[in-house]
Amino acid sequence: MIRGKDGSIIPKVVIERLPRYYRYFSWLEDKVEKISSKKLGEYMGASASQVRLDLSYFGDFGQQGYGYNIKKLKQELANILKINTKTLFIIVGAGNIGRSLVRYNFFKEAGFILKAIFDIKPELCCESINGVQVRHVDTLYSFIQENLIDIAIIAVPREVANKVAKVLIEAGIRGILNFAPLDLNIPKGFPVENIHIIDKILALSFIVNSEDGKRIKK
Amino acid sequence: MIRGKDGSIIPKVVIERLPRYYRYFSWLEDKVEKISSKKLGEYMGASASQVRLDLSYFGDFGQQGYGYNIKKLKQELANILKINTKTLFIIVGAGNIGRSLVRYNFFKEAGFILKAIFDIKPELCCESINGVQVRHVDTLYSFIQENLIDIAIIAVPREVANKVAKVLIEAGIRGILNFAPLDLNIPKGFPVENIHIIDKILALSFIVNSEDGKRIKK
Repeated sequence: MIRGKDGSIIPKVVIERLPRYYRYFSWLEDKVEKISSKKLGEYMGASASQVRLDLSYFGDFGQQGYGYNIKKLKQELANILKINTKTLFIIVGAGNIGRSLVRYNFFKEAGFILKAIFDIKPELCCESINGVQVRHVDTLYSFIQENLIDIAIIAVPREVANKVAKVLIEAGIRGILNFAPLDLNIPKGFPVENIHIIDKILALSFIVNSEDGKRIKK
Repeated sequence: MIRGKDGSIIPKVVIERLPRYYRYFSWLEDKVEKISSKKLGEYMGASASQVRLDLSYFGDFGQQGYGYNIKKLKQELANILKINTKTLFIIVGAGNIGRSLVRYNFFKEAGFILKAIFDIKPELCCESINGVQVRHVDTLYSFIQENLIDIAIIAVPREVANKVAKVLIEAGIRGILNFAPLDLNIPKGFPVENIHIIDKILALSFIVNSEDGKRIKK
């Protein structure tokens, strides 16, 4: 349960929208000084009242009739999202997805530090990807404990994902970003976010194939 | 606007949940024959009434007191999600993310056929990744028109993502799965799904860092 400055519980949907606000402020800060909730809503595809409500959880950034100060609000959001603190993370699974995430530069930009990548294949052990060492998954538990890792990304096959999650949680990891195509069997309330690529393309396929009318060739 | 069997409009949130149902049915079909909405809800972390409501849009699969026939329902969902039809797609951007998606086996399992991958770098042209040819982005428009591609995955840098989206839509693409870290500037109502990895880890980081109490070292 996460509470706002006035003590009210912040809904998870609002928390999940905050990074989008941060992205918009990063983009806007060199362009304008202030922005109204109406204008911001237009950019983000939301109503002015939703923008005001979302941002109200985090204190009184805006002034009636004056709009939000972008630089100040971006700084506040960075503090809230802990972008200015360093968050340690690891990746479990040095396959296809795991390897591409090692090379994903946005993590570093957003203040996340990748400490290691783990795999079960002995032949991968001690290889270095983009300067990050691959370690054997047998050392996962002790590594998390010794290095006080905050977040783990699961990028292993479906069949072993729950087993990995169990070790991570027992070792004291605080949040999981899961790329394996299943809903992890973890304690209720444990912080987890899922990226289910196949669900997204299936939903898209359904929408696309349900449309009336045929493709028009130009 | 997508309508259910009884003509009512199906909310987008319901459509986005369907692939999850499909995943659960695939997992359950070898285990049990029938399942109640209550049990299914427990697996999925949803209420029995939500399960009944979600599935009611697609006709009357369940029988009061008897539960849902899993094999039949899975087959119906496959038809709805067009898993049994072949959906053609392309990937734009042969960088880090694009390359890992070429090797992502779940697409083929779910009935998606990758026809090509596009990049702007001339030196990548005609290289083959996992049996799929890399083509120059200059040929994107004509390739979509000639091959009647349904879906495009955008995996290019933020700066060029909107330019790519414009070409895709003009060429007649019917849906976009966007990995670039921005909200695309596309016509309202055009089918798009976003995978914003960095938003997910930022939201997770916020939750993790907001928790009371310190890490407990075991």
